[in-house]
Amino acid sequence: MTLKVGVLGYRFMGKAHANAMARLPMFFPEAPEVERHVLVGRDEAALADAADRLGFERTATDWADVVDEVDAFYNLGPNHVHAEPSVAALEAGTPVLCEKPLANDLESAERMADAAAEAGVPTATAFNYRFVPAVRYAKNLIEDGELGEIHHFRGRYLQDWLVDPEAPWSWRNSEELAGSGALGDLGAHTVDLARFLVGDVERVSGHLRTFVDERPVEGGGGDGDPETRPVTVDDAYSAQAELEDGVMATFEASRFANGHKNDHAIEVHGSEGSLKFSLERLNELEVLRGGDRGYETVLVTDAEDPYVDHWWPPGHVIGWEHTFVHENYEFLSAIADGEEYHPDFEDGLAVQRVLSAIQESDERGEWVDVA
Amino acid sequence: MTLKVGVLGYRFMGKAHANAMARLPMFFPEAPEVERHVLVGRDEAALADAADRLGFERTATDWADVVDEVDAFYNLGPNHVHAEPSVAALEAGTPVLCEKPLANDLESAERMADAAAEAGVPTATAFNYRFVPAVRYAKNLIEDGELGEIHHFRGRYLQDWLVDPEAPWSWRNSEELAGSGALGDLGAHTVDLARFLVGDVERVSGHLRTFVDERPVEGGGGDGDPETRPVTVDDAYSAQAELEDGVMATFEASRFANGHKNDHAIEVHGSEGSLKFSLERLNELEVLRGGDRGYETVLVTDAEDPYVDHWWPPGHVIGWEHTFVHENYEFLSAIADGEEYHPDFEDGLAVQRVLSAIQESDERGEWVDVA
Amino acid sequence: MTLKVGVLGYRFMGKAHANAMARLPMFFPEAPEVERHVLVGRDEAALADAADRLGFERTATDWADVVDEVDAFYNLGPNHVHAEPSVAALEAGTPVLCEKPLANDLESAERMADAAAEAGVPTATAFNYRFVPAVRYAKNLIEDGELGEIHHFRGRYLQDWLVDPEAPWSWRNSEELAGSGALGDLGAHTVDLARFLVGDVERVSGHLRTFVDERPVEGGGGDGDPETRPVTVDDAYSAQAELEDGVMATFEASRFANGHKNDHAIEVHGSEGSLKFSLERLNELEVLRGGDRGYETVLVTDAEDPYVDHWWPPGHVIGWEHTFVHENYEFLSAIADGEEYHPDFEDGLAVQRVLSAIQESDERGEWVDVA
Amino acid sequence: MTLKVGVLGYRFMGKAHANAMARLPMFFPEAPEVERHVLVGRDEAALADAADRLGFERTATDWADVVDEVDAFYNLGPNHVHAEPSVAALEAGTPVLCEKPLANDLESAERMADAAAEAGVPTATAFNYRFVPAVRYAKNLIEDGELGEIHHFRGRYLQDWLVDPEAPWSWRNSEELAGSGALGDLGAHTVDLARFLVGDVERVSGHLRTFVDERPVEGGGGDGDPETRPVTVDDAYSAQAELEDGVMATFEASRFANGHKNDHAIEVHGSEGSLKFSLERLNELEVLRGGDRGYETVLVTDAEDPYVDHWWPPGHVIGWEHTFVHENYEFLSAIADGEEYHPDFEDGLAVQRVLSAIQESDERGEWVDVA
Repeated sequence: MTLKVGVLGYRFMGKAHANAMARLPMFFPEAPEVERHVLVGRDEAALADAADRLGFERTATDWADVVDEVDAFYNLGPNHVHAEPSVAALEAGTPVLCEKPLANDLESAERMADAAAEAGVPTATAFNYRFVPAVRYAKNLIEDGELGEIHHFRGRYLQDWLVDPEAPWSWRNSEELAGSGALGDLGAHTVDLARFLVGDVERVSGHLRTFVDERPVEGGGGDGDPETRPVTVDDAYSAQAELEDGVMATFEASRFANGHKNDHAIEVHGSEGSLKFSLERLNELEVLRGGDRGYETVLVTDAEDPYVDHWWPPGHVIGWEHTFVHENYEFLSAIADGEEYHPDFEDGLAVQRVLSAIQESDERGEWVDVA
Repeated sequence: MTLKVGVLGYRFMGKAHANAMARLPMFFPEAPEVERHVLVGRDEAALADAADRLGFERTATDWADVVDEVDAFYNLGPNHVHAEPSVAALEAGTPVLCEKPLANDLESAERMADAAAEAGVPTATAFNYRFVPAVRYAKNLIEDGELGEIHHFRGRYLQDWLVDPEAPWSWRNSEELAGSGALGDLGAHTVDLARFLVGDVERVSGHLRTFVDERPVEGGGGDGDPETRPVTVDDAYSAQAELEDGVMATFEASRFANGHKNDHAIEVHGSEGSLKFSLERLNELEVLRGGDRGYETVLVTDAEDPYVDHWWPPGHVIGWEHTFVHENYEFLSAIADGEEYHPDFEDGLAVQRVLSAIQESDERGEWVDVA
Repeated sequence: MTLKVGVLGYRFMGKAHANAMARLPMFFPEAPEVERHVLVGRDEAALADAADRLGFERTATDWADVVDEVDAFYNLGPNHVHAEPSVAALEAGTPVLCEKPLANDLESAERMADAAAEAGVPTATAFNYRFVPAVRYAKNLIEDGELGEIHHFRGRYLQDWLVDPEAPWSWRNSEELAGSGALGDLGAHTVDLARFLVGDVERVSGHLRTFVDERPVEGGGGDGDPETRPVTVDDAYSAQAELEDGVMATFEASRFANGHKNDHAIEVHGSEGSLKFSLERLNELEVLRGGDRGYETVLVTDAEDPYVDHWWPPGHVIGWEHTFVHENYEFLSAIADGEEYHPDFEDGLAVQRVLSAIQESDERGEWVDVA
Repeated sequence: MTLKVGVLGYRFMGKAHANAMARLPMFFPEAPEVERHVLVGRDEAALADAADRLGFERTATDWADVVDEVDAFYNLGPNHVHAEPSVAALEAGTPVLCEKPLANDLESAERMADAAAEAGVPTATAFNYRFVPAVRYAKNLIEDGELGEIHHFRGRYLQDWLVDPEAPWSWRNSEELAGSGALGDLGAHTVDLARFLVGDVERVSGHLRTFVDERPVEGGGGDGDPETRPVTVDDAYSAQAELEDGVMATFEASRFANGHKNDHAIEVHGSEGSLKFSLERLNELEVLRGGDRGYETVLVTDAEDPYVDHWWPPGHVIGWEHTFVHENYEFLSAIADGEEYHPDFEDGLAVQRVLSAIQESDERGEWVDVA
């Protein structure tokens, strides 16, 4: 049986997932067969080009025509488009992978998680960093008790693409279209890794900040077009949190961290050990275990490391895109085998609750319990 | 003229300052002449040994006999002993250097700062990390505008000496004797560097945590002695803050960060550049300036770098203790020359106000304005 | 027009090149169309499996049937099989890509280069590390004079897969099958980068060493089979060299460098700057330019960096395998466009001359001019 | 009993050793008492200033008046002044510490070692890097067999103070005054660490290079003075070597390595582990032991680490100058206790033999056995 996949969105994420599917046969021969069946978008010319390049059988301009016809629906559109098509697909009994954050707001996320529960099919919130071999290796260390009882989780995700006040406005700067800014786009990943590696978030205190209030519209300014649009989301956020079992946590992200391109860094300290990870050196994990005096730089490229036997010999490093291959492999296998998949919509909702609590805390100026 | 210095405290800090004074003639010949005049403590035998080793002329068991007789009084005792002798010395018109944090609580700190203002003599709060050449070099970069408008300050101070629950109780675990734990001991340094490098702290949201509630008394348990004592201070804290000019900041410290011995790390991001520093590599500063694509690892050991011409040729690194030499040089010179010195008691009080606000915020669960 | 490619060898290198070809349409749409036409090997069952997985149209067990039938012939077999099929393909007018080192010995390499010159078609010696974006960026810096006059080149390639004396014998341990050991397998890459980045090698002094003289045969020991076979190549080599324009160079490689998996590190010092690179962090280049005080860590993932616009946004790192995509793109484009390609067989021969001189120098105990 | 020390030389090394002696009472109370008795030099005014600042009782302009009058004679002059005063002191039965390299040439070094043997008093060649805590910790690891059988030693010492062709001529550029250039000045340290950590050097192949043939004389050019002087020593050297027990080694140093100030880096690979060290981060040792997958960054500042209990708590790093304190402590204690000291003149001679063999090898173009 071949799984027909329909994909909404053909830019950055569309390319990442199309590439991931294309690479399965050579590297994950045990994966189900997959057909990149239909690519969905509005601009027909651009869409046709993309479908050709990304290897899709056909195109469609209305997702509603597609969601009940495919074996899996990938919702890779902007955040404000996450809810409706995903719910429709689920109501049609179609498994759905949705990019993160799950939704623009908590209410939409709840609706999506409800639809998923109703449908009883596999769903995925696309937290691809769970599928970095080094992160999975870290997860195993923690589960095996190598770090002992966890005391601290520290996560920060730094980028710098908005530090120039003349960087153009995009949908990512709009609360209506994106829900939030650095918080939802970057923080969602951090909160998911906290949950994955350590445990649920119970209370938060958040701080959001917009450094530049309006930005120029690209090509704007002609004939009544506004020259700038307001930035209605955060450029940066920080948060303090308590996770279950009394773990103390800090989260932070910024689009104004000069010199950091995609620096998602995680640190965990336990009673027996510690670990450090950065996405910019994603083949490496810094590990300190009982009896060690300092961090050991582990190159997570040995055959017995998670996913590595599918790729290359030790020391032959992989890249960012490989996380999508692993994610697609797991999700499509879960569909084919009728098994559970995580992170699913319920996980996406759990993250959304934290994001929402951080925003609410910032507004109220006090700690907020995660519902 | 020779400055006679009286020192209260002969352990870790006593040794650090005695060494600093001893090294001035060879490396800072322009410093005033200094006599390590009198060492003050309670245990006469230990005190005599220490005075001999640390090069003091004589000893005293009561600081009250000393404070009006010396040209400078160094208060290096535990935090709860900071206020009274310091105030007495100031009332006698004697300049005072006091170890950090300035006091156990805000009220004492205010009293000390008032006494300093009244006395009109130089005072010092011993934030020695202002005197790391790399930190001073960073300060110059920021003042020269090399980093542009500052957006983020991030400071964390990680140690691990309490991660073992059997590590013995000490005065640093007692609110009565120390005021607070990681917050006052480590966080005070971080807050001072934030003020030094970027600006005043206006609002904070704090989070304090004690992981181990009681600890064994060393040699305890005999004859009615308790076997353990309660830990009444924080083992770790985190804080979010707003500094002046809208700078977003996070602070954090822990005595439970496995693998980190004395890791005071500072990061600053501005519109034109960024910098990173860690005390465990104190000769280095990571600098990103306009046009750079990544951090440049600057070894701050060139002759034109702050204080370096007093020491060795480029690449011949200095250590932690050298910060005390620089600090003593500046403070003693200020006394001899009748000039201002910073960080003084007013700076110590400003930091204390932040520490106090962080504690209050943690108790109230909401943001607190720094008075 | 579609280029039909025939590939000899279906293991590690076969997979790396098949993957590279498979990824061209999505990421290098301007590349010529390529058909993975025929896969050549001796073990029919394994070959059929591999062809299926790697996406080849058909298989063949004799390269002689293939070389005049394809538009490009990839010779990915062990070193001792490089010469004959490559020469045959060239005599049939077929462009050839051959894995490195070009040959087992200098005489074979010369024969291959002669055949290439005769044929007048593009050839490639598969020095894929020329196609790392960071290496190409380094090349541009040097060509633009950013490093000034070059004084030093330092290259070392460290692996550890033979440090266990019980690691099994393979063809790579046999002079007859591999020509040399660490020298040809790893050193060839280093010498090629020296030539690419700095210039030709004029004189060398070499040192070869075999630490373990015989190794167990996997599954050996039954029925008259030997239990061990002799190691007749070097486990490690070092060399000193003079490059053109008086550049001083050192080369080194080992299969006994515990803790190093695939650590190909290059350092260059010039009158105006320096650079450092390691394959284990292949997205990074350490650069020091005129006026800098230390190395700047450049993440070579910006859109304007070599090849990067074909992949992902800044900070989304690529892996080892991407170097093969770039290499295949350049070579196949050269074939389609009838243009020159480097590194070609002449470059491979130039490297072989250096390898040969290093071996001769080690035998004679004196410096040897590179012919 | 107080040891009276006479010191020839009052610049860089004079200051380093005077400081070391001055710090003994406070940090090494078990050291013998030391009097900085007499400072020897030719320029009386400068000498008087230096003696005052460095804490010497008196001065002398002729070493011959001094060598039989002190309990220890420190010869810190330029290399060409090492032999005669040292031999005279030894003939007077006075223990001698001599800066490295031991002499300008092999013949002088042999004469000095002979005199030392004759005298039967402690001697020291001032290879201070043996006294870095991290280096001593490395030595212990190797002696305890933690690295197994050693296969590789790699040492390089990089500086950049001559990369500017206008950097002024000094005695270090003269064969007559210095014997050799980077080889003797920097390489001597590397060869000593190879001997200390791993074993004797048996055969070498050397390569020396002078990039700039003449340099301006500072303040030169007046009244018949030459404006430049010839550089008659190497600016950089490299060497390949075989150590005892078949260890393969490479050595290298340069004064033209842009961006490196005092970067003495050592790497050792054994059958069970590896280690890496750099003088620019002298508190750290990178260690890989059996079972480890990567290097562990050990901060060698724990109380049980070599010499550390004399200084500060864990994580409070020391500097370059502390190596001189340890060296002086060991040498002066050996004198007081009548015990052996290493590295002595015999060790200095052993290094000189290697330096000499490297020079000879470079001249002859072939490997040379170390006598």
